[in-house]
Amino acid sequence: MPIIAAMLNVDALQTLKPLNTAADEEVATEVPVALTVNGISQAVMLATPADLEEFALGFGLAEGWFTSRRDLLDIEVQPQPQGLELALTVTAACDQRLKARRRTLAGRTGCGLCGVDSLAELAAVRPQPVLPPRLAGDALDRALAALPAAQVLNARCGGLHGAAWCQADGELLLAREDIGRHNALDKLTGALARRDADTRGGFVLMSSRASYELVHKTAMAGIGLLACMSAPSSLAIATARGLGLELWAFVRAGRATRYA
Amino acid sequence: MPIIAAMLNVDALQTLKPLNTAADEEVATEVPVALTVNGISQAVMLATPADLEEFALGFGLAEGWFTSRRDLLDIEVQPQPQGLELALTVTAACDQRLKARRRTLAGRTGCGLCGVDSLAELAAVRPQPVLPPRLAGDALDRALAALPAAQVLNARCGGLHGAAWCQADGELLLAREDIGRHNALDKLTGALARRDADTRGGFVLMSSRASYELVHKTAMAGIGLLACMSAPSSLAIATARGLGLELWAFVRAGRATRYA
Repeated sequence: MPIIAAMLNVDALQTLKPLNTAADEEVATEVPVALTVNGISQAVMLATPADLEEFALGFGLAEGWFTSRRDLLDIEVQPQPQGLELALTVTAACDQRLKARRRTLAGRTGCGLCGVDSLAELAAVRPQPVLPPRLAGDALDRALAALPAAQVLNARCGGLHGAAWCQADGELLLAREDIGRHNALDKLTGALARRDADTRGGFVLMSSRASYELVHKTAMAGIGLLACMSAPSSLAIATARGLGLELWAFVRAGRATRYA
Repeated sequence: MPIIAAMLNVDALQTLKPLNTAADEEVATEVPVALTVNGISQAVMLATPADLEEFALGFGLAEGWFTSRRDLLDIEVQPQPQGLELALTVTAACDQRLKARRRTLAGRTGCGLCGVDSLAELAAVRPQPVLPPRLAGDALDRALAALPAAQVLNARCGGLHGAAWCQADGELLLAREDIGRHNALDKLTGALARRDADTRGGFVLMSSRASYELVHKTAMAGIGLLACMSAPSSLAIATARGLGLELWAFVRAGRATRYA
């Protein structure tokens, strides 16, 4: 990230002056980020320019592009007139797998669900069932109490979501932030993959609501428990139940609701 | 919407029992919704199954698929094994315009930004500059005070965003809800287009943060002012400034910050 900031003069936060206040303020940077794989455009997302290498790895793992971090050989961050390009170089086997998938999408455009443009493709990548960790009684409370201090960028601008990796006893080990909750989780799972972390014994705590995609991404990372500070959706609950993933929502001090 | 609910036995809210509480709860329904135009898949999104006809119209207008609501001749909601299909029938002129756009995307997949798969396409659809309305001094306060009562579904489940159309004096005239903030705004602008509403004299209030896409969609609907309850992003501010759109964020009782 320091390299990107230096190259582009963009950082995760920007300082500006609102029109009706005297003091400067920091706001979260939102920048178009394009992912290319061996030279071919795959996706564009709006993201916060921090931890982008981990974002690319986590996104690719969640999408089933990579089966392990060893599929991804190199990442270059290239400034473009309209945003940042993350140019990924992958193994030949991985490239062939992606090309086979792309052929089935020829002539279509996609939206909303990453790389998916028709209902038939929704089930293309299915996570394996997961095994939830055995949480200590106060684990969610401990993790929740530690989250604000781990959201270092959000404390300055108020516009970022946080995703945190926590041990079964509630100790918060790692957190990532982004303007998008799905991106924040991709950055976290990418960071875990880069460290070859054992993801079976802990859980993810998110500052956001619990959506289908967060459940899907958590399970794709081999993590068995997701806890979210706000409301769950019906599809998040149904997906979690189908995968054996333990889902908690409305996680607040002293209480939380278990949905799966 | 009553028709869809009857056909599919899905509704905007679902009742279920959490695992660690005695009482039933309502949660927001999240369902994959595929948009097809004259039989061709265009996009899949996760959305709340309410006001879907207005959603399709608002989304298509924001994407530049339609230049007016008269381009859209018919919408059928068709249940599919994995979600709902919104089958749109459009005029021949509109169909040709869409096909010309699709040819340039052949063989690619898209993600995150609707229908966009590379940075070069980001600027494909540019809103016209807009003219902000002249707000009454207490307009944001009035609209903010009226929003909770207008979020009728969210009051029951806590998991939905709201988008409201308000007069320059702050009177809230119309609100729409969805699990996704962008969808909520598409539903609102679709509802306004269906009513041939004059969008120049009012503003949009959203329960969410202010992202680039919300600014873009607001301007595509010809609306000159967007007010959001939470933080703005850098790109939202820059885009608003470029279009002459008045952008307020951190809208709270008695105060708000003007960013553009």
